[in-house]
Amino acid sequence: MRIARFSIDGNVAFGAVEGDAPPGSTEGLVLDIIKGIPFADFELSGTKVPLDAVRLLPPVLPNKVVAIGRNYAEHAAELGHEVPDEPVVFFKPSTSVIGPGDTITYPSFSQELHHEAELAVVIGRMCREVPRERAADVILGYTCANDVTARDAQRREKQWARAKGFDSSCPLGPWVETDIDLAAAADLTIQCTVNGEQRQLGRTTEMIRPVADLIAHITEAMTLLPGDVVLTGTPAGVGPLHDGDQVAVSIEGIGTLTNKVIKRG
Amino acid sequence: MRIARFSIDGNVAFGAVEGDAPPGSTEGLVLDIIKGIPFADFELSGTKVPLDAVRLLPPVLPNKVVAIGRNYAEHAAELGHEVPDEPVVFFKPSTSVIGPGDTITYPSFSQELHHEAELAVVIGRMCREVPRERAADVILGYTCANDVTARDAQRREKQWARAKGFDSSCPLGPWVETDIDLAAAADLTIQCTVNGEQRQLGRTTEMIRPVADLIAHITEAMTLLPGDVVLTGTPAGVGPLHDGDQVAVSIEGIGTLTNKVIKRG
Repeated sequence: MRIARFSIDGNVAFGAVEGDAPPGSTEGLVLDIIKGIPFADFELSGTKVPLDAVRLLPPVLPNKVVAIGRNYAEHAAELGHEVPDEPVVFFKPSTSVIGPGDTITYPSFSQELHHEAELAVVIGRMCREVPRERAADVILGYTCANDVTARDAQRREKQWARAKGFDSSCPLGPWVETDIDLAAAADLTIQCTVNGEQRQLGRTTEMIRPVADLIAHITEAMTLLPGDVVLTGTPAGVGPLHDGDQVAVSIEGIGTLTNKVIKRG
Repeated sequence: MRIARFSIDGNVAFGAVEGDAPPGSTEGLVLDIIKGIPFADFELSGTKVPLDAVRLLPPVLPNKVVAIGRNYAEHAAELGHEVPDEPVVFFKPSTSVIGPGDTITYPSFSQELHHEAELAVVIGRMCREVPRERAADVILGYTCANDVTARDAQRREKQWARAKGFDSSCPLGPWVETDIDLAAAADLTIQCTVNGEQRQLGRTTEMIRPVADLIAHITEAMTLLPGDVVLTGTPAGVGPLHDGDQVAVSIEGIGTLTNKVIKRG
């Protein structure tokens, strides 16, 4: 099931996405409004609205986004880094999250935003100290993410809170696909285009640490809450975003997350 | 006013702390229960309960804690670091927050937790791009914090999400003191004791960047929400915490935050 979150008549609702549309399009898709929330028992109401008639929101409002750096060897190499012994773990705050179609805005302290297309794992239940073999139990589903990075600030500042945590640096969407299991998530194509031109193309098979390892490593330290999101690293091909650019992250079997870039001043 | 958050009969409430008690004690203090929440207009109900009859909770439930590293020159030096050109900014997640009297628990991946006594700023209103001279307007008040750090993991892991973000790594309390203004906050004694022995002693005058600078620097990148917390760095004297230790952070004009340490296995 594809679960979207959207606003309609001033209310926020979840809905199951039904129908098929060409890649990157939402034409003809319909939302069956969910009674309840996706993190507990819920049912479909049977009340349907065209997806193009609503505004999609970030598919979840995470309490925290826990992200992984340098999880694809080719990407680590392109930035001149060795593959780390341990996964590099950092946070993106809830205030960095935006939805499909929302605007990525340059912060005043950066002249060099980069796109980083990533598979995002949406956590379904409160959990800690999750062993690898139980990781599937705590996952609600998967969505697309763009780990937008102020590369210049990242070079200057030892900790990445500002460079990767500024407002609008975490586009998520377009919806959560719940019908992908852990094994299938390990073999998906992930792509980033800017103004229709391909910039990043990878497969999740290239991850140095698979999703189950990441969840075990993170929850060794901290509790994950329903709706929290784990970003799993970006493949090679990161590059700059300019004023007016349309950046799109597409993941096989999930969908396409598109955002516009604005650089003020 | 000192505003505490507490649980009573299974409900969570805020209350104004009234009365005087010897340093480090809560004997004789009374809570006047608040109608409403401290982040909007509120009034005192006149219904009073002895503070010792309730369980104090973290005085706020922050959406995020934004913390500053190496903001006291002597502390930077004791860890062998130079004073950075820009403040070092990192996050502690909401799941790291515990209250007065709660237990700091060693995570499985660390053998070396350190105390770091810090002045915590509690944000009172949603804000971004706050100029230094307007910082006072967005502050609700101040409390004590312990930026508990897995020093061994911090040395191993380039980003500090696990080393400083594990569950129970952010004790806050005992309450929020709202009657301290920015100028006064710049000249407070800050102390950490372990089992009654003094380990850290500093003054907030020794901060490299004052509170107003930190708020400007952080909000240049990200929105702060009501209840978010800014940690302002620790003075020299950090050191290890062992199983069974009682660690206390005391700040002049605010109060004392005490927690016990447990090391499993």
